[in-house]
Amino acid sequence: MGKNVTFSDIAKYTNFSKTTISRYFNNPDSLSDETKQKVRDALDALNYHENKVAKILARGKTEFIGVIAPNFFFPYYTSVLNSILDTYRDYGYKFIVFLENDNSEEERKYISELLSYNIEGLIVLSHTLPSHELQQLGIPAVAIEREDEFISSVNTNNFKGAVLAVEKLIGDGCEFLIHINSHNPEDKKMPAYARIYGFEETCKKHGIPNKEFFVSLSNNHEDYFKKVSEIYSEAKEICCGKKAGIFCSNDIIAVDFLNAAFLDGRKIPEEFEIIGFDDSPQARQAIIPLTSVRQNTVEIAKSAMELLVKQMDKGKRSKPKSVVTTLEHIVVEPQLAERQTTF
Amino acid sequence: MGKNVTFSDIAKYTNFSKTTISRYFNNPDSLSDETKQKVRDALDALNYHENKVAKILARGKTEFIGVIAPNFFFPYYTSVLNSILDTYRDYGYKFIVFLENDNSEEERKYISELLSYNIEGLIVLSHTLPSHELQQLGIPAVAIEREDEFISSVNTNNFKGAVLAVEKLIGDGCEFLIHINSHNPEDKKMPAYARIYGFEETCKKHGIPNKEFFVSLSNNHEDYFKKVSEIYSEAKEICCGKKAGIFCSNDIIAVDFLNAAFLDGRKIPEEFEIIGFDDSPQARQAIIPLTSVRQNTVEIAKSAMELLVKQMDKGKRSKPKSVVTTLEHIVVEPQLAERQTTF
Repeated sequence: MGKNVTFSDIAKYTNFSKTTISRYFNNPDSLSDETKQKVRDALDALNYHENKVAKILARGKTEFIGVIAPNFFFPYYTSVLNSILDTYRDYGYKFIVFLENDNSEEERKYISELLSYNIEGLIVLSHTLPSHELQQLGIPAVAIEREDEFISSVNTNNFKGAVLAVEKLIGDGCEFLIHINSHNPEDKKMPAYARIYGFEETCKKHGIPNKEFFVSLSNNHEDYFKKVSEIYSEAKEICCGKKAGIFCSNDIIAVDFLNAAFLDGRKIPEEFEIIGFDDSPQARQAIIPLTSVRQNTVEIAKSAMELLVKQMDKGKRSKPKSVVTTLEHIVVEPQLAERQTTF
Repeated sequence: MGKNVTFSDIAKYTNFSKTTISRYFNNPDSLSDETKQKVRDALDALNYHENKVAKILARGKTEFIGVIAPNFFFPYYTSVLNSILDTYRDYGYKFIVFLENDNSEEERKYISELLSYNIEGLIVLSHTLPSHELQQLGIPAVAIEREDEFISSVNTNNFKGAVLAVEKLIGDGCEFLIHINSHNPEDKKMPAYARIYGFEETCKKHGIPNKEFFVSLSNNHEDYFKKVSEIYSEAKEICCGKKAGIFCSNDIIAVDFLNAAFLDGRKIPEEFEIIGFDDSPQARQAIIPLTSVRQNTVEIAKSAMELLVKQMDKGKRSKPKSVVTTLEHIVVEPQLAERQTTF
């Protein structure tokens, strides 16, 4: 199959020296067009398979990008990964994927592996390592929806997402607003934290009474449902008959709230309107299809690749290889996917 | 950071020739222990970073495995990918992941890229390329839940999964059984097709009247729901008051059927019992948590890695590199995850 064609074979076939053949691969500009054509013909004749590994050694271009995601519990991560993998068709980069499962030591070990493969860039969706540590790696890196003080990033306009949801609830006549969020209220550096500010400021602007609830993250769904059901009971008390609008920071919470209210005989969207975040498959398959803030994961992945390519190109032009220090933070606009939990 | 330490630097530091340094990396057994120790000390002193790419060229061991999945529409694929990525902790292999999105030409191009990176093995979940084509690649390869005539594979015991579900429905007193499947009835080579045989044989064994429905695959959920709602209406007619048991080939169909029946005022599990397949997040978040056949994706991923490692080891021992021709087909047992759509 030509897999074992060596430089010697090509040299023999062309009557060039091995050095010339090596130059063809490593420094083609040093050869005449005629010589290059002869080598090319020989490669065809010998059925030579391109060996990327040889090319890597020669030019340092692996076409590899490392992707680190936290988990697949939230469909958001799956959706972003899907969109990242699909950029292969436009950019040709190959993705080495790792799930960090909340273990920063594993993540460090993995990154060190990736570096030893000369990856050209890194896309980080996980939260365990601070961005100044990622910056120190000295390779092009882009954060998606995580703390991004020291590296470039792509985030959804989370504030805007919350505003879209809350304006919709108010426009539909909700008199009391509730926000349920799965983030730790301490973690103000997460871009998604802006969903809370968006909720608060929009309520304030319109003078609507409101309350916030926090449920801590858990990979165990029964836990989650129990907590959200308790919040539902409390919410019902607080609203005491007023029409309530519920904005949740993800669809998992929103569907749980919807189920709790529906099973309790509430009319949706007449008594409760509910809006989730992420527009996940769960939103579409809910007993009443859920209105949700849709993050544009295709655009997010595309922007991340554009940022990376820009950094990689700059790295190539300057010698010695320098790392871009100008940070860029791209913000991608979300949309409201309206379904039947709102009017 | 020592990233640019070259063989020349190491040679200078140790007073060895560059050839000796090259031997250290490529053929260490040709050097004395003393020499090796001196080189090792120099690497430490110079803060030399392991360069896997050099190691790859030297030994042909990339520690890369290619993974090709069809899509992330079915949570089953996400779950298997999650489990495959998690085997990094036990095996150290890195995964280059590709989604084929039903395009065999793209898939061929991608596989050729993977080969040029000297991947050591391939895990194939996608269906577009026939297994004899995958066999011809001449590298260790394992299929998961797809046609596997010419390559080794790991599949769920799909027949058993169906038997578990149908026996449960019959045991709960269902008098009429319905199976809804998303496969093309022509596609008998897919392992999942055995769910149909399992349904048919168990119905026959117990003499229970039954009917099968097929809905064609679609990435558009509204389409799916409409079709499943029509099946629900027809099923209601056919059963005319008898208690019906519904076994679906995936949770998406099962949740849609559940929603259609629930919204139509049916009592579940009193009038209809429903069992899905895959035990996906959708099953847990259904309005009535769905009983579902759980595939053991952790075991599936582990078995796939074991098969690959076995093939890779055999390839290493024999010279010239030969590909294993003995096929192994591992079958992983499913379980019934019982929730509230059955008694």
